[in-house]
Amino acid sequence: MQEAQQAVLKNESPQAETIAVPLAARLGDPLSAVDTPSLILDLDAFEENLRTMQVLAERHGVALRPHGKAHKCPEIALRQIALGATGICCQKVSEAVPFVAAGVRDILISNEVVGPAKLALLARLAKQAHMTVCVDHPRAAQALSATMVEYQASIKVLVELDVGQKRCGVQTPDEAIALIQLVQKLPNISFAGVQAYHGGLQHKRSLEQRQKAAEKAVRLVRQYLRAFAKAGITCPVVSGGGTGSAVFDVASQVYTEIQAGTYAFMDTDYAGIDWGEAVSFRHSLFLLGTVMSTPTPERAVVDLGLKSTSAESGVPLIMDHEGLRCVAVHDEHSILQADSRRNRPDVGAQLRLIPAHCDPTFNLHDSVVAVRGQYVEAIWPISARGLSR
Amino acid sequence: MQEAQQAVLKNESPQAETIAVPLAARLGDPLSAVDTPSLILDLDAFEENLRTMQVLAERHGVALRPHGKAHKCPEIALRQIALGATGICCQKVSEAVPFVAAGVRDILISNEVVGPAKLALLARLAKQAHMTVCVDHPRAAQALSATMVEYQASIKVLVELDVGQKRCGVQTPDEAIALIQLVQKLPNISFAGVQAYHGGLQHKRSLEQRQKAAEKAVRLVRQYLRAFAKAGITCPVVSGGGTGSAVFDVASQVYTEIQAGTYAFMDTDYAGIDWGEAVSFRHSLFLLGTVMSTPTPERAVVDLGLKSTSAESGVPLIMDHEGLRCVAVHDEHSILQADSRRNRPDVGAQLRLIPAHCDPTFNLHDSVVAVRGQYVEAIWPISARGLSR
Repeated sequence: MQEAQQAVLKNESPQAETIAVPLAARLGDPLSAVDTPSLILDLDAFEENLRTMQVLAERHGVALRPHGKAHKCPEIALRQIALGATGICCQKVSEAVPFVAAGVRDILISNEVVGPAKLALLARLAKQAHMTVCVDHPRAAQALSATMVEYQASIKVLVELDVGQKRCGVQTPDEAIALIQLVQKLPNISFAGVQAYHGGLQHKRSLEQRQKAAEKAVRLVRQYLRAFAKAGITCPVVSGGGTGSAVFDVASQVYTEIQAGTYAFMDTDYAGIDWGEAVSFRHSLFLLGTVMSTPTPERAVVDLGLKSTSAESGVPLIMDHEGLRCVAVHDEHSILQADSRRNRPDVGAQLRLIPAHCDPTFNLHDSVVAVRGQYVEAIWPISARGLSR
Repeated sequence: MQEAQQAVLKNESPQAETIAVPLAARLGDPLSAVDTPSLILDLDAFEENLRTMQVLAERHGVALRPHGKAHKCPEIALRQIALGATGICCQKVSEAVPFVAAGVRDILISNEVVGPAKLALLARLAKQAHMTVCVDHPRAAQALSATMVEYQASIKVLVELDVGQKRCGVQTPDEAIALIQLVQKLPNISFAGVQAYHGGLQHKRSLEQRQKAAEKAVRLVRQYLRAFAKAGITCPVVSGGGTGSAVFDVASQVYTEIQAGTYAFMDTDYAGIDWGEAVSFRHSLFLLGTVMSTPTPERAVVDLGLKSTSAESGVPLIMDHEGLRCVAVHDEHSILQADSRRNRPDVGAQLRLIPAHCDPTFNLHDSVVAVRGQYVEAIWPISARGLSR
């Protein structure tokens, strides 16, 4: 031990190599050479998904404003916009920073913003891009206006309506009208419309249930719009909708833009729902893992867990492997159970797993490895990863 | 719109400010000035927890090797080692890189390592620090030895035993002995002992159940040790144990070192268990959030969700607020339900929340804000965040 200690001390001389974590992949590498765990994007499926949703929105004359919170990756947003998206949503102000830096010029912060640091950052962003933000409280509107005046900036405002999500948003048309009238009076902020997003209905399993829930939300929005019209309020924008309800939202004649995010990637949350025949999206996003242990004839352990895949919505799904399922996700392991020795992969085998929930899974990775067929075509930084302020 | 577009284009001239995300806190700031969501460490509670576990281990002559996967923060590891910890564990090879860079000189990779990229990195680390790694498969031992020979490095090996976790590890004493004898024959790797970690028993609620489960694991380890003795194998190290079973593990006369991690922080997973009178740890880790919406008299929405706190083990616990509980965690929101208007915090109120599971929660943040009382004393980078390869 003494000798080993001395050897190490010798290695600590100024000549000692500074070790950096090697990259997981290089451009042109075959997928089989990518180190694991890695987040992989199948570009063919991804691009088809982008086109499918863009065509669906355009066919109904509705704008597509994809949600940046789903991927936090400016390279992806630029491709969505190039195909015709009107801009993007971000859920947090800091999240918008790398998208603005990458050239995105129209961002809706689809959320309430509270506190002087966040409002100041929002004002600075509003001097570089067309920013819109949600409010659901008079004090929030006043603080927003005061900050915009201070920074000589201006911003558009959507009043958020609670259409069944039971999260943020005003509760009644009267409350909405009072808030809109306040927004219209305050300097440097302008009323642009409403946000009416219902996250809860997105994952209802049956197409019929989802349609009913979406229609219920739309009926509620119509009540608000009628009350606005009576009060002489013009409401140009109705923003909302998601991947699960998009097919109904675009046809609702209420929504002017839809905020879908997951459609580009899909996950097990959405994979389980019935899509009917109207539209479908492919799995473009997966985790690449390596079997690191096979302690029993039916058990395999793969080298990724909670730190690579979000598991609050369930365990990941294994692709292209019959008779093998994930039974538990630990911090850095997932436990796989095979129905027979024949279906248990060996140590060293690479596996592809579909994450349960793509948004928080993207947020665990610094980059996504974009593959075309079996080869690495690009490595895109997930620049807004961790930006939750 | 045309005019606004032109104004923005003007702002895009080379003089346009490049916006960076501002820091959440500065040294000396009061806690109330820290931007949210932020991960906060109460230094008084943290330091007391470090001392409590160190004293517990030393009283029984057992080494403490805290788990770096719990915090991924070299500043924390250095404080654990300064108090007497023998080194740290890491769960992944890449995770060890920032700890070695920070000067940690004794690291157990408490896990199997598969694949040439990971083995090469491990070999390079082994030339700068005393590295130990687990194996549970003959091919893994052979690949490890071959890589160490190639890099002219050497490494110690623990054979992992499955003592009830049903994850990795050999299943029988015969399998262990064959693997140990192989390790002893191979060049540049040396057998140092066994890892016998049982994660599943750590969170059993009652002290008595936990004691029984810990004793069962210890009995199994003793069977292995007796078989090793018969085969003439000396086993210097028995590594394992965790926060929940530490009080039994240190007294077991089997474990030579314990791998606890959460003891320094605590989380709701561990908060719910019965500690008895032997030892107790304080909550030192919490999330700071701001109420961003109060849509109804009993509902408040706080500005942190799945991207700031791991929720696969449950919702976070609200500190110091009677009659208020978290009922749902979305990507960037947590929904709080008050039992009355009086107990519902107002928009702008700061709240402290205890995460459900500290390890994956640390992995969501780039830094932890260390506070002494009500003031920011340090901001420590979570340098191994995202390093899961």
